Amino acid sequence: MSVIDAPSVPRPPPASVDAGHRALSDLLGADRVATGADQRSQHGHDESFHPEARPDMVVWPRGVDEAAAIVRVAAAHRLPLVPFGAGTSLEGHVAALAGGICVDMRDMDAIAAPSVEDLDVVVQAGVTRRALDARLRPEGVFFAVDPGADATIGGMVATGASGTTTVRYGAMRENVLGLTVINAHGDVVRTHSRARKSSAGYDLTRLMIGSEGTLGLICEAMLRIHPTPDAIAAAACTFPSLDAAVRCVVQVGQHAIPVARIELADELQIEAINRHDQTSFAVAPTLFIEFHGAGAADVEAQARDTAAIAAEHGGSDFAWASDESDRQRLWHARHGAMEATRAMRPGSGALTTDVCVPISALADCIAATQADIAQHGLVASIVGHVGDGNFHVILLVDPDDPADVARGEEFHARLVRRALERDGTCTGEHGVGYGKARFLVEEHGPAAVEMMRAIKHALDPDGIFNPGKIVPIALA
Amino acid sequence: MSVIDAPSVPRPPPASVDAGHRALSDLLGADRVATGADQRSQHGHDESFHPEARPDMVVWPRGVDEAAAIVRVAAAHRLPLVPFGAGTSLEGHVAALAGGICVDMRDMDAIAAPSVEDLDVVVQAGVTRRALDARLRPEGVFFAVDPGADATIGGMVATGASGTTTVRYGAMRENVLGLTVINAHGDVVRTHSRARKSSAGYDLTRLMIGSEGTLGLICEAMLRIHPTPDAIAAAACTFPSLDAAVRCVVQVGQHAIPVARIELADELQIEAINRHDQTSFAVAPTLFIEFHGAGAADVEAQARDTAAIAAEHGGSDFAWASDESDRQRLWHARHGAMEATRAMRPGSGALTTDVCVPISALADCIAATQADIAQHGLVASIVGHVGDGNFHVILLVDPDDPADVARGEEFHARLVRRALERDGTCTGEHGVGYGKARFLVEEHGPAAVEMMRAIKHALDPDGIFNPGKIVPIALA
Repeated sequence: MSVIDAPSVPRPPPASVDAGHRALSDLLGADRVATGADQRSQHGHDESFHPEARPDMVVWPRGVDEAAAIVRVAAAHRLPLVPFGAGTSLEGHVAALAGGICVDMRDMDAIAAPSVEDLDVVVQAGVTRRALDARLRPEGVFFAVDPGADATIGGMVATGASGTTTVRYGAMRENVLGLTVINAHGDVVRTHSRARKSSAGYDLTRLMIGSEGTLGLICEAMLRIHPTPDAIAAAACTFPSLDAAVRCVVQVGQHAIPVARIELADELQIEAINRHDQTSFAVAPTLFIEFHGAGAADVEAQARDTAAIAAEHGGSDFAWASDESDRQRLWHARHGAMEATRAMRPGSGALTTDVCVPISALADCIAATQADIAQHGLVASIVGHVGDGNFHVILLVDPDDPADVARGEEFHARLVRRALERDGTCTGEHGVGYGKARFLVEEHGPAAVEMMRAIKHALDPDGIFNPGKIVPIALA
Repeated sequence: MSVIDAPSVPRPPPASVDAGHRALSDLLGADRVATGADQRSQHGHDESFHPEARPDMVVWPRGVDEAAAIVRVAAAHRLPLVPFGAGTSLEGHVAALAGGICVDMRDMDAIAAPSVEDLDVVVQAGVTRRALDARLRPEGVFFAVDPGADATIGGMVATGASGTTTVRYGAMRENVLGLTVINAHGDVVRTHSRARKSSAGYDLTRLMIGSEGTLGLICEAMLRIHPTPDAIAAAACTFPSLDAAVRCVVQVGQHAIPVARIELADELQIEAINRHDQTSFAVAPTLFIEFHGAGAADVEAQARDTAAIAAEHGGSDFAWASDESDRQRLWHARHGAMEATRAMRPGSGALTTDVCVPISALADCIAATQADIAQHGLVASIVGHVGDGNFHVILLVDPDDPADVARGEEFHARLVRRALERDGTCTGEHGVGYGKARFLVEEHGPAAVEMMRAIKHALDPDGIFNPGKIVPIALA
């Protein structure tokens, strides 16, 4: 269904696949190595339109040592090894382009006791964001990266995820202190001590964040956690234009108001939310804002200052949601954006993409994107983590109409180039997979991509780790 | 004067040095290639006890293209290339262990117009922290990493610097958006677009931060800047014990009070400051704290909450310094710690080192260090960025007495091992150079260091970039 050709990655010889299967059966027991069509199919695609590419077998390691042994099997038989978390990625990250072993991390779902003194917690890669939230909540702490989807922490590390709260608390890069990974030799590597910071050698932690399983198998993460704020409040505010809304966001940043979330939805998105959630937001560019503070007075001061800035830019209907249920409703509306948009045209699929630009270029980039949508007669809504200059386009396409999918991909390419022309990036948080690999040279230049390829070659000389992703082109 | 043997790095043949000198003279003009003993000596050492190791020649590039051409000369003749900033590093980072070309970046001191909309600024590597501060101040913004020394931004990138304000604003890792570096082929590589965040490929920016000139020549940095706070206040508070002071810091963190600085000084350090600065701080473990806020009320609320926590831990004399001159005096005292300690024993040198441990282990680690100091009859003061678990020991040694220097290095090794036993790091912010290279395997394990070495080999196959630093051992 995709117009993007998957990179051609040579498949291992069938004899190697068989030998790998036997070795994994010996290691884990034959009943723990799945080769049925259903399992292979489920593990061969993500939530995007990128076509399925099935692994030859699927395994579920139960601990770090078992994961390391699995990597050693892959290394010994030169089999591709594709990690799998919740399958919520969007750029073909988990497609087993050359078959091989899919390593589903969901049985590695242990969470160590969080330290409220050090404000850190060690989790296994298969822990989901919501499971972590449920575990941390009674301790009065929380993990601050919220990509919306109930992704696994391992997947969020692998894609360098971020989300609605990144404007205040940072992305995975700022919230992962260290990792346990399995390298290409099957060694267990711990990338960082438990110290809050270090200058002791190359930053393997950050190198692994965003590496999408191409440099090693991510097994555990030590995460930074934050005390749950004493007071939380949320508000929605509508603006006469997208430009006015974005200018409001810029000024909130210039005043160093520590908003915890500041999310933009365009008119179509609001219309979709109203229809889907039976809400009655004014159909206009809208900011959803959340404030975290040391107490009610602190939160009120932040909100008052923000409301004043919003008013200067024509913002109206600054609607409070200070109790928990109102707030949940508001964020439910925001997080259901994709579903709401899809419901605008039942049966359609959603091509969801993301770019990120300097904030000074954001209003212009969004306006040009809306014009593109209108010009090509597309149906697409826009939501964004505007405090970071990051926005998503949710484009409705008919998944059964190749021409419609092709139009979607052409729009996607125009969107990316519009971001690159403004010195932005082809992806703020979704990652590269193979869906965006073609833009890497355009964004970074050939010398930078050649450095990435050299790193890939150095750390994974046989190319076993998620082949075909990020730097798919043949090694030099 | 050091007891640490510098790693043995093969020198290039004299004919290559001569050929490199001719090529640089052709490129820059003979008068811009210094070979005099004074210049070579000045560029052959940092502020530590690590012995001088002179480069064969020193050059001062005036721009990125010239820097790239210099790297191409080094690459063509396989000459070591050692970058030089302000020379304020402490672990032998700039020692030209195998001679070669020292590239002094101080003529690359341009600062582009900061964007108060995007809150970023592009600077060349030779810009010093104070020069940047002077440029940004009138714009109502500031750069938030303050290591104390007036280092160059390039040097701060190279060592992964941090400092007093890291507890709130992060280290270089969190405050550098992108870099312009010259790779081993002499190509100009830009590691990142101007977007605030990205998931587009491997994080070359963070890989370069803390790489100490061993992976490429850092020429420019795009930095994140912050609005100058509306209100700033500072305070000092004394505690009955180090443990009480650290427990206060932990609780301030648990309450998410956004202190901008929270610095510990031990009794000896306070005594040294009192003598040197004619101040009259109570001689007891002391926290120096700074608050940044949206207004006087905000800052007062933070200070009130902090004072209440301090009081719970026996903190007394919570002394305000809310006007600018009082505040400057207070931080002048803190920043002059090394000088003040040295003045305790005129003529002595200072062996300054740093480790970082989990905050839960900090009080115990400092107490054990004080006991070590007492047991061995050493004179050493302790200051620390305690909000991060990072502390420095300033040990007085007689630079002309090899036995005294040796005792100092033995103490240093015990200190590092004490940090590693507590799951800390051998350096929180000073970096590795060659002075701490011997601890890397102990800290990270052989497999992680082997990955670092593979990266070094991949990006610098001929070993021209600052050879002998971080991963000095022969490439596999």
